[in-house]
Amino acid sequence: MTKPALNVGLIGTGFMGKTHTFGFAAAARVFDLPFDVVLHTVADRTEELGQAAAQSLGFRHGTGDWQSVVANPEIDLIDVTTPNAFHKEMALAGLAAGKHVYCEKPLAPLASEAREMADAADRAGTRTQVGFNYLCNPMIGLAREMIEAGELGEIRTFRGIHAEDYMTDATHPYSFRNDPVGGGVAADLGSHILATAEHLMGPIAELMGDAVTAIPHRPDGKGGTRSVMTDDVTRAFLRFESGATGSIEASWIATGRKMQHDFEVYGSKGALIFSQEHFNELHFYSSDDPAGRQGFRRIEAGPAHPPYGLFCVAPGHQLGFNDLKAIEVARYLDAIAGKAPEPFNFRKGLRIQELVETILRSSHAARWLKPSI
Amino acid sequence: MTKPALNVGLIGTGFMGKTHTFGFAAAARVFDLPFDVVLHTVADRTEELGQAAAQSLGFRHGTGDWQSVVANPEIDLIDVTTPNAFHKEMALAGLAAGKHVYCEKPLAPLASEAREMADAADRAGTRTQVGFNYLCNPMIGLAREMIEAGELGEIRTFRGIHAEDYMTDATHPYSFRNDPVGGGVAADLGSHILATAEHLMGPIAELMGDAVTAIPHRPDGKGGTRSVMTDDVTRAFLRFESGATGSIEASWIATGRKMQHDFEVYGSKGALIFSQEHFNELHFYSSDDPAGRQGFRRIEAGPAHPPYGLFCVAPGHQLGFNDLKAIEVARYLDAIAGKAPEPFNFRKGLRIQELVETILRSSHAARWLKPSI
Amino acid sequence: MTKPALNVGLIGTGFMGKTHTFGFAAAARVFDLPFDVVLHTVADRTEELGQAAAQSLGFRHGTGDWQSVVANPEIDLIDVTTPNAFHKEMALAGLAAGKHVYCEKPLAPLASEAREMADAADRAGTRTQVGFNYLCNPMIGLAREMIEAGELGEIRTFRGIHAEDYMTDATHPYSFRNDPVGGGVAADLGSHILATAEHLMGPIAELMGDAVTAIPHRPDGKGGTRSVMTDDVTRAFLRFESGATGSIEASWIATGRKMQHDFEVYGSKGALIFSQEHFNELHFYSSDDPAGRQGFRRIEAGPAHPPYGLFCVAPGHQLGFNDLKAIEVARYLDAIAGKAPEPFNFRKGLRIQELVETILRSSHAARWLKPSI
Amino acid sequence: MTKPALNVGLIGTGFMGKTHTFGFAAAARVFDLPFDVVLHTVADRTEELGQAAAQSLGFRHGTGDWQSVVANPEIDLIDVTTPNAFHKEMALAGLAAGKHVYCEKPLAPLASEAREMADAADRAGTRTQVGFNYLCNPMIGLAREMIEAGELGEIRTFRGIHAEDYMTDATHPYSFRNDPVGGGVAADLGSHILATAEHLMGPIAELMGDAVTAIPHRPDGKGGTRSVMTDDVTRAFLRFESGATGSIEASWIATGRKMQHDFEVYGSKGALIFSQEHFNELHFYSSDDPAGRQGFRRIEAGPAHPPYGLFCVAPGHQLGFNDLKAIEVARYLDAIAGKAPEPFNFRKGLRIQELVETILRSSHAARWLKPSI
Repeated sequence: MTKPALNVGLIGTGFMGKTHTFGFAAAARVFDLPFDVVLHTVADRTEELGQAAAQSLGFRHGTGDWQSVVANPEIDLIDVTTPNAFHKEMALAGLAAGKHVYCEKPLAPLASEAREMADAADRAGTRTQVGFNYLCNPMIGLAREMIEAGELGEIRTFRGIHAEDYMTDATHPYSFRNDPVGGGVAADLGSHILATAEHLMGPIAELMGDAVTAIPHRPDGKGGTRSVMTDDVTRAFLRFESGATGSIEASWIATGRKMQHDFEVYGSKGALIFSQEHFNELHFYSSDDPAGRQGFRRIEAGPAHPPYGLFCVAPGHQLGFNDLKAIEVARYLDAIAGKAPEPFNFRKGLRIQELVETILRSSHAARWLKPSI
Repeated sequence: MTKPALNVGLIGTGFMGKTHTFGFAAAARVFDLPFDVVLHTVADRTEELGQAAAQSLGFRHGTGDWQSVVANPEIDLIDVTTPNAFHKEMALAGLAAGKHVYCEKPLAPLASEAREMADAADRAGTRTQVGFNYLCNPMIGLAREMIEAGELGEIRTFRGIHAEDYMTDATHPYSFRNDPVGGGVAADLGSHILATAEHLMGPIAELMGDAVTAIPHRPDGKGGTRSVMTDDVTRAFLRFESGATGSIEASWIATGRKMQHDFEVYGSKGALIFSQEHFNELHFYSSDDPAGRQGFRRIEAGPAHPPYGLFCVAPGHQLGFNDLKAIEVARYLDAIAGKAPEPFNFRKGLRIQELVETILRSSHAARWLKPSI
Repeated sequence: MTKPALNVGLIGTGFMGKTHTFGFAAAARVFDLPFDVVLHTVADRTEELGQAAAQSLGFRHGTGDWQSVVANPEIDLIDVTTPNAFHKEMALAGLAAGKHVYCEKPLAPLASEAREMADAADRAGTRTQVGFNYLCNPMIGLAREMIEAGELGEIRTFRGIHAEDYMTDATHPYSFRNDPVGGGVAADLGSHILATAEHLMGPIAELMGDAVTAIPHRPDGKGGTRSVMTDDVTRAFLRFESGATGSIEASWIATGRKMQHDFEVYGSKGALIFSQEHFNELHFYSSDDPAGRQGFRRIEAGPAHPPYGLFCVAPGHQLGFNDLKAIEVARYLDAIAGKAPEPFNFRKGLRIQELVETILRSSHAARWLKPSI
Repeated sequence: MTKPALNVGLIGTGFMGKTHTFGFAAAARVFDLPFDVVLHTVADRTEELGQAAAQSLGFRHGTGDWQSVVANPEIDLIDVTTPNAFHKEMALAGLAAGKHVYCEKPLAPLASEAREMADAADRAGTRTQVGFNYLCNPMIGLAREMIEAGELGEIRTFRGIHAEDYMTDATHPYSFRNDPVGGGVAADLGSHILATAEHLMGPIAELMGDAVTAIPHRPDGKGGTRSVMTDDVTRAFLRFESGATGSIEASWIATGRKMQHDFEVYGSKGALIFSQEHFNELHFYSSDDPAGRQGFRRIEAGPAHPPYGLFCVAPGHQLGFNDLKAIEVARYLDAIAGKAPEPFNFRKGLRIQELVETILRSSHAARWLKPSI
């Protein structure tokens, strides 16, 4: 039985373009996808670059004209991995052309723009996705399943951290990351831990933010310095609709931390500890264990935690970062085929953007705020 | 050469009374103390209990009249380990009698009371101490030394947590811990992590608190329930005078956590990670390590980290909780002998109490506040 | 510039067949391979199965006749992933036809057979490879680099363990793993840790083995039981040619262990600790660190540890098990192109087989033996 | 009710003398001992040193004549902490005088001497003890309890390691540790892990040793070098009487390891992992946990693990190395009072010595041997 083809048009050939291509290719090998994915056309800034990208990434065609990709009736899905500032225009064009649109995070630099995109997606009626790959980890899935099944009892508190160190060096020049529109650590890393927080705990009802610029001046690349307005470390207190409370912290100046996307969830009869530094594990404490035998249990990912078993039949062998991207792609294709709901559509992407902006507004106003979307 | 005697009068014979007695005894064996410590008299609620305590704890005399201990001219040091509500009266009496006074934490349920005690200590001119034993850990000493020596570069952020789980069970009846005067997790556990924060980072200039009652009703022990007004989990954003920022969290409903007194300190060229769960270790990251060889280094406590070597000549053998109390005692006795400044006197105890109350006031007012002391 | 094509013929479509196909596909996406890899033909037991495998694995052709694959002049490389008993016949046929041959481990059930295969490879003059994927881990590469560069000083001792638990259940019936020819834990798992030992420490000169059958009877699947002759846990003392000494242990009854491929290497001025359970890390101790600051350093895999950077530009994101297979494929293709020596050819595969058999012979004879190959 | 006095005579005032004195003092404070322990007399090499030791260690009397201590009818217990070469003479004198004798490990440099001591103890009918403090850890007690209760099912394998690094430096001169009579790592550290092995697994029936001199020459302190005959790293395969098998390794050249006294025990339905580096924890895996929720559980020491609760009422606060010595003393005093069997008497000390010598003989003979005692 042959599967229907799904023709992909990729716009953007940088690191994320390459990662998405890996994701499509790996998903096709690992999963029994509902489609026969065809890497149809890739667009770069010039015809030459587009041709070269087609060659190196394995697309059938390459082009320097992204609009021709959107206009091509053969193409079913537009995959946008260009810099953030271009997401909106390209995604709206794709949706207007009736395509499914897959967009790397963040959806757009501003929530107002993201809202336009989410509204357009509703009108288009096609399937959209924003790339929040951490949520595709089987162990995050296990955490959510355990919380929902009541294995921790009533959930009371959450603490989440996303810390890296790529902006630690104060002599690193001012860059797009420091741009007031769309830059800052809350948008870049805070968005990830906010997505995890709501994935596990449900909607945030109210929050209090604290956004800090720890390195107030950076070289301007012309021999002088430039004032930095964006945040280097951002914290927030959280109230969830469920009544639980929590906090998040995002930092890109956490010297020594390479990928600390960590959380702890405490319930009335159990708890979970997770660290992306060992992301094939989840630590679980249960008060149901006998006295004198209680302790955090290091659960290693295995076939008991789908879709791990599709990658490897034996437990403990471990998935890698790129494997998470393959899961992300597979789930999106299932949604396109109507087999499952969209795992993280534009409306969810908008929600994250709104949470980020609410934190920044709250920090500025020095008071608790509710997200408005 | 014989040493001068230091006669100790202990008031209170509960768990902390026992722990202090261990501390005096162990300090005398481990350290070359400036005094010959004499366990002179212990007071309990009745003459019989006092006599029994003298026997079991190894004091020369026992009594049911704590005031006679304070009045006894043979006694040099009054050690107060009674319930918090009695600290003030006893400590003031001891100071009025010209004694050194050692008081278990918290100094008093209210900062206003603690202030009276600190002022009285100034007038008395004797040496005082509040029992913050975590700070006596050689690895906390190492952390402070490394920070002060600039081994981490400019210090930027701090995150501290003190979490335990002894109040997790919602069927546990309302108790003194839930009393609005002096109860609550910020006072009980938050005080510890605030002390650590200022010990390492210097004074907190401003803070924003979030105090949460997660279990709003508890059994009243009479078949009904009683509303809980005190905090179960409390968080705060911190601004240090140095310009660094940070946060703390205190929780006594962190199911599975038995003694999580943890911190992370990030500087411009290094970082420290510490967990009380493995308190004979400090993890250190240095950007000065060669590329491809960088990583958090697990430093194990040893003779290179005084006063570890007095307990054991070999590294890695580990101190226990009671050993920290012996260090606390030894440092206090050095201060009494004029060999070193008071490590944690009543004024510092007052400061911690004020920080706790500022967090609670800030949470109530939902705005940033500065500690007033 | 177009690359020369390399046409692959795969024999065997089970889990390892799938994993190899992933490896070829992922290698082509991640690496700048010297060839344009063409998944030409896959052979299964019947024509139908072959066709289905071609469809699901993405090969151009499928067949039920593996000999036709070997005979096909279009095909450059024969990839053998069938059960161990078939390796020799297929590999010899491939070599006789002048093909490169890639064979899953173990090369053959008996060293005598493996020797025939290695000799045939020498005669054929083509490139061969045995699938020892653990060695492809960038952190194992780092360990070897550090040892060779003298960062640990003179190397003195090694301890290696490969432990899993898939044979723990004594009610699990007798299987091919328990077959005296080719079965047993020394062959199945010991081979991996022996390969690691020689990769890091150089040749083993002499050894003393201890092979133990811990579960002496297993169900025969017909209601009775059958005696087990093969080893469940095997240990060996090792003397390396360098003068260093060490030990290995292999167990498939290590309840709770899913993938413990661990080693520790101690030198005169440094040490390494590695665990496959966290295989994106290597722990390094250096006596050159200042006193009071020494400790095992947790180095996380990143672009400083090639070829990690081809998978991900940022450190700490982690490779997965399947990524190691892609590295294995890429290195083999470089060897075929003459750009690098064969990373693990049939002669090395024979060596491992000989070491396994020497351990078993030594255990039986209860005396130290030298490997004869 | 007053307790009978137990008068202690200590011979030897070095580090172990101090540690034993801590142990007596701490035991008296922590436990409800059956005796009122009196630190009666301490003997050193001269009268002056003896007097000074009495002063610093808190003994009533000091002397330069150890024989007078043994002869003193007031003294009930002789505690021998002198260098190993003196153990036999002093212990035999103490036993001949009808005293209880407590002797630091190893009992004597040679098993033949240890046998004389054990026989003398039998004749004397008093209580003896050898100082194996690691076994006093509540978590080791828990491990034994779990094994005996069948919580791991049928016990199959054991792996034990005791590794430190105090002999790593090859420029460190030849010392008593390198002396063929009584020196070597098997005697110094191997004894500890052998004691743990038999404590948990029962008697060793047969073994195969491998004793290695890794640093064959050391400075002789006179400008030349001296050949080293003793072992730096020693390994052994073990057969237990129960049918289980295992191994131990002892190394004093494990660069970076300060106190690695580790073991893993695997049973048919569970496993334990322990490391002295975190000796207030025991990791437990149970196959009885539900599928997808299995993992090694980090059990933290607490009041559920006696006698922890006598040191601290709250879990997770941690015992230190010196606390283990207090437990060792308390158990010995219970044995003297007839309330419990001797935890580790001279006969057990002899057994360990015999195991050490059997390993060395086995290594020399290159064949499996049975311990003869």
